[in-house]
Parts: sequence; structure tokens; C-alpha cells
Amino acid sequence: MYLSGHRRAMGPTKPCSDMHGRQICVNLVAPTSISAYRRPRLVTRAQVDKADDHAVAVIGRHKPTYKNANFPTDGEGRTYHLGTKEGEVAPRILSVGSVSRALLLSKLLDPPTPGRPLFQRTSSRGFLTITGRYDGEPVSIVSTHMGQPNMDFVVRENRAIVRGQMAIVRLGTCGAVQRPAKLGDLLIAAHGSIAIRRNPDYWTLMDGRESLLRASNSPTRNGTANGTTTTNGNSGAATYGGFSGPKPYMTSLPVPANPQLAALLAAEAAQVVGPDRVVEGLNASADSFYSSQGRTGSDFDDRNEGLLADLVAAHPDLVSLEMETFQLLDLARCSKGSIKAIGMCVALAERYSNAFLEYHKLEELEISGGNAALRALAHVSLDGPSEAEAETLKEREVQYVWN
Amino acid sequence: MYLSGHRRAMGPTKPCSDMHGRQICVNLVAPTSISAYRRPRLVTRAQVDKADDHAVAVIGRHKPTYKNANFPTDGEGRTYHLGTKEGEVAPRILSVGSVSRALLLSKLLDPPTPGRPLFQRTSSRGFLTITGRYDGEPVSIVSTHMGQPNMDFVVRENRAIVRGQMAIVRLGTCGAVQRPAKLGDLLIAAHGSIAIRRNPDYWTLMDGRESLLRASNSPTRNGTANGTTTTNGNSGAATYGGFSGPKPYMTSLPVPANPQLAALLAAEAAQVVGPDRVVEGLNASADSFYSSQGRTGSDFDDRNEGLLADLVAAHPDLVSLEMETFQLLDLARCSKGSIKAIGMCVALAERYSNAFLEYHKLEELEISGGNAALRALAHVSLDGPSEAEAETLKEREVQYVWN
Repeated sequence: MYLSGHRRAMGPTKPCSDMHGRQICVNLVAPTSISAYRRPRLVTRAQVDKADDHAVAVIGRHKPTYKNANFPTDGEGRTYHLGTKEGEVAPRILSVGSVSRALLLSKLLDPPTPGRPLFQRTSSRGFLTITGRYDGEPVSIVSTHMGQPNMDFVVRENRAIVRGQMAIVRLGTCGAVQRPAKLGDLLIAAHGSIAIRRNPDYWTLMDGRESLLRASNSPTRNGTANGTTTTNGNSGAATYGGFSGPKPYMTSLPVPANPQLAALLAAEAAQVVGPDRVVEGLNASADSFYSSQGRTGSDFDDRNEGLLADLVAAHPDLVSLEMETFQLLDLARCSKGSIKAIGMCVALAERYSNAFLEYHKLEELEISGGNAALRALAHVSLDGPSEAEAETLKEREVQYVWN
Repeated sequence: MYLSGHRRAMGPTKPCSDMHGRQICVNLVAPTSISAYRRPRLVTRAQVDKADDHAVAVIGRHKPTYKNANFPTDGEGRTYHLGTKEGEVAPRILSVGSVSRALLLSKLLDPPTPGRPLFQRTSSRGFLTITGRYDGEPVSIVSTHMGQPNMDFVVRENRAIVRGQMAIVRLGTCGAVQRPAKLGDLLIAAHGSIAIRRNPDYWTLMDGRESLLRASNSPTRNGTANGTTTTNGNSGAATYGGFSGPKPYMTSLPVPANPQLAALLAAEAAQVVGPDRVVEGLNASADSFYSSQGRTGSDFDDRNEGLLADLVAAHPDLVSLEMETFQLLDLARCSKGSIKAIGMCVALAERYSNAFLEYHKLEELEISGGNAALRALAHVSLDGPSEAEAETLKEREVQYVWN
């Protein structure tokens, strides 16, 4: 192999501490050896010295061994993307979009046990988990990033390491789609959520029709262009079908929220910000911040000019438009009763007026929403582990950060 | 409002420097005032003192004002999620999944101008952009996180601030679906990519049928359960249709990669790791690391036991399974010829043998793949801005970090 024979690119691993004095592994990249990878025959002493000036600490490069490609966990039982293990995450989870929001709202938590700092862990993929207590109950705040695939990571990898029933509340930001939802309101997905997705086959089929007309002019390489080499293969497959054809965007049927958690959250939110600032309705989660939320522009062929108006006309109770809640509710619905879930968002933009919330007002609303969400989480009833499961836990001597 | 009258939660903004001496804004959260938000009437001096012990620097909380909800940018023209502006990002972009991979591969770059450090900026959402030169050409490395919605942010927000034609190469990790693709190979999506998505309506329609049987036992609140309150509204909408019904997963038709960039990348990769370690074929991008990639488990009702086998049977040239490439190729296809794109992944798992690459081998492969990708990016031909556009740029006096 071209690059064999060079020494490993990574320097020694140094265990370092985070702001709470633990849990971050730092691995110093040795730039000299990476330069060596790039131009093995050209490295000079001057280049090495120069490269050393830029030595960089790379968090999370030190990775353990993962054994199972079906559900990878490391030797400690830590999940692959979130990096937490049993005992570190509470059954009551507040999911927020950004690391900074997670840190901000962690100030609302009490220590997991008296006198100890909050549990805090950042994974190599940037997911931050913070565990403490709220109103006496163990709760975790997890930064989820953006988009439904990231919510999928958060729900599935936490479900894998928590025993008993769980409650998950998402607190995010969203666009307010129509009145009465307005800037700065807390919009609760009490009517559940639909998904809005771009339908790529719309463009493929259009291209296909157009390519028939200009076939002789189309540059192709090994016949790979315009989807002509690969069989679609939808016919006869047992587990999947094709996309529906004729429209550039698709919406799903609504998936419900947990009614008990929705009612609790609405009551708490009304208590914190006043009932006139809380709107319950239907949410829509899109697979883009831009095209499938009806944001228009000229850089891409998006064909979405009428999308927002169509959605509003078809869903009179649609209030919020964002990118994560649907996945949370859909997984809760498929969790065999093991997850209660709801989403609430601060309306950061009014899509009908094009106005954007002044950012200095956002923090107060995040804290208000965070308090309401944490209260609902702390007080919703959850079934504990079954007797058999509890027995297993005792045998395995799981350590809980809140015990 | 319940919380009015309390002072703002945020302390004063302090401009601080990152590892390259610039560009990070740090805003000190004042925990005293957040505690005040939580329990306004209960704050004691002791609590305030204790809270101060946990003062935390929150990166990126200081946000400028955004004016346009359709395509939000700040007063400097910085995009909303990636936080970069014109002149900071090169037309040749390497998209990688994690911040640590971006930092690792940035060691392969030369300074944007002699003697100056690499340009580096981290947005409040954790997107890291690094700009320098490779083989003399300005190139940017952008950490994209995971999932197609994040790739959507990266492609669209960079397209908005770069003039002229662009080239984007994704370097990621993936599962090898079938032979000849094996652990540690570089798998190139030269045949394009399909998308695999969960079809939530499959479960909704199943629930609907089942709920008719157990209607009297179903707890509902305000009629929100089982999708019965909200009209589907698919009939008559001009821009969107419903999902196809009968299967739990859907695949799209393939979208092609750019043939010129694919050929360049394959040649460069073969030169770096040897031709026997490079496999060209079809990629599939899933909307979950778990369900829609055929990873099975008992926590959720996923109905995906046969998915992987069905995909392999239907697509003999399918080699890689990951979560981002499709969105890149789909947007390039809809970019009106303005983006050339391709994806390449290190095979981190063999889905047919359940083996997982030893992590200590990954770095060498990332660097090999990074070099091949950067070489292809630096040498692919791109059209510059039009004459009219170039004139506008001169008038606007755009500052480029590589000039």
C-alpha cells in the first residue's frame, strides 16, 4: 500500500478533564507525521518545525474498539454516536438542538447527588449529555443537533441504555406557519406531527423524459447518468416500495404526541409564559431548512413556490415548521409503549410576515420553555423496569450517576 | 408575562480567540440570573454564590440580528447555520462528517496566503469551516455532521456565498454492503446514489386498521390520536403528494455523480491506496443509522429484517450504505450545472460479516482518502464567475481569505 511504512499519525493519548473535571479524552495530533503522509519524500526539517507550530488538540479521536456492526457499542457498553452508557442517562430526557442551549438549560438542574457536579459527557460526534435533577427527579438534557436523522440517533441510542418507560420532550425553535402562532410564542405539537420530504424521483423522472429528447448530447460515463444503469428494483422487494411519483414534495399522515405529556406541558408552559403565549396544534418536520419548508431561492431547482400555502390550506391546525419533532413522535409511536414524547418550539420566525425574532429575546424564551419542559418531564408518570429487569440490573451492578 | 422584570440571563459578551487567535465569540452565562428565572422568589445569597462556581463559557450564544426568514443572514452576510460569508469559503469543498476529521485533514492544507494560518470558523451550530490551499488551489474543509438535512445546510449555505462553479467531495465512513467492498476499502459513489427512507404511513395505516378494532379501548385526548383529527390534505395540493402506501421503507431512483469528478477521484484514490483497495459502485443514503440501514433490534417496531438482503438483491452494484451522499448528489443535480459532486467513504463496517474496522486503522485511511479527495478537488476544472458577476464582485470589494 502506498502509505504503508509510515508511523501512525496520532500522538499519545492524554486523558484531560472537561469543565467539570472529567470525561474528555484529548489526543494530540502530531502534525509532523501527517505531513509525512502527505508528501512522504518531501518533508524537510523546516516543514516539520513549521507544522509543529500548529499542533492541535483533537477531542474524541481516541476511539475504543467496536465489535458489532448491527448495534455498535464499545467495551464499556457506550453507544456509538452519543457515547453514553447505562446509568448515565435518566429516563426523563430533554432534547435540545444545540450544545449551547443544553449548557444554558443545565443551569436549571440540581446536582444528581448532593454536592456533586452535573454529569456531563460530549461524544466524538458532538452530542452533549448532561444529567442532574429537576424537582428531585433525575433528568438528562441531550443536545440533538438538527434534522430527523440526528433525532433518530438520540432516541434509539438512549432507549438502548435506559431501562423502564421513558419520557422525551423536545425543546427547539421553529417557524410560526400561521396565526394565531406568532413570534416568541411556545408552540406545542399537541396535535402530533406530519413529515414533509422532498421527492427526488420527481426530478429524476423529469430528467428521464428530458434526456430522451437530448440523448445524443448527454455526456455519460459508463452509462451511469440519468439512472439508466441501476435497476430500481422496487418490484417484488418485500420491505420497501418506490416513492410516489408526480409531486416534488410529499407529506406523511400525522403521528400523534403523547396526550398525557402534551397536557402537562401545555399547563406548565401556560403557567410560565401565560396562556396567550402558548399555542397547541399540528407540527410539520421538514427534511430541509430550505426547500421542503417552502423557502425559495434561485440557486437550485426546488419547485416549492406554492408549498407553504398548500400546507396551510390543507392543515388548518398547522402551527409550527421545524426539522426534528416528527422523528421523535414516530419512534415513540413504534416504541411498543416504552416512550412518551412531545415537542415544543419557540417561534423564531413568522413565515407569514417574514419577521425574525430578535436574538436577545430568545434566551429568556429558551429558559421559560426549558423550565416548562423540565417540569412536565419531572412530573409525568412512568412505569419503572419490570421486576425481572430490575433483578438483572441488580446483578449487573449498574452504577447510576444520580445514586 | 410570568418571567418579566428579571434581568437578562446573559452576561457581557467577551470577544475571545480560538486556537488560531481569532473568530470565537464567548458569552459568559451568568448563572445567578438563570437561577433567578427558575425560582424567582427563592434565590438566596448562598445559592447565588454556589451557582457562580459553575460559571460556564457558552460558545456562540452571542447572536447577531437576522432579518429575513426566507434566507436568514446577518448584517455581515453570514449564513444562519454555517456562519460563513463570501470570501471565506473556496469553490472547492471537502465535506467530512466530524469536527475531528476536519481538524485532522486540515493538516494536509497549506496556508491560504504564505505565512498566514488557515482560516477557521466554528458556527453556533457546530459547523467548522477551514480554508487553505492544496496543490496551490484554495480549498475549504467543512464539517457536515450526520444525515441528509445537515448535508442540505452545507450545500445550500455554501452555494449562497460562493461565486462561480463549485466542486464538492464528501469523504465519510460507511458500511460495505456486499463484496467486493471490504473493510478499509475506499468506496466511491461513481454510479450515483439512491435514498432509503422509512415510510411512516405504513405504521399509521396499520394503526388505523387496528384502532378500528379496539376503538373503545383507545385512550385519546381531544381526538388527536391515530391521525383522525387532521386532514391529510394531499388531494388537490399542487406541490406535494402522499407517501406510497404498502411498504415500510421506500427507495428513490438513483441520482448520478459528476462523471469527471468521479473519474479523477477514482484515479487519485487508486494512486494513494492501490487499485485493489478502491471500489466504484452505487451508494445508498439512509435516513437512519439503524432502521433504514437494516440494523435490527427489539426496542422498536421496525419491520426491517429483510431490508438489507432486498437492497442487495435489487442493486447488484450497491457497495456503500451511509447517510449523506444522496443529498449532495441530489442538490448538485438540481443546481443548474453549478455544482460538481461525488462521495467517497471508508468502509468502517462489513454489513455482510458484521465486522467493524479497528479504530486505530481508521486515521491512516482518513488521511489517504483526504489526500485523494483534495487532489481531485484541486485539479477538477471549474468555470469561474461570469464577467458580469466578476464585475459585481469587484464593485462590492469582497475580501478573500486566500488573497
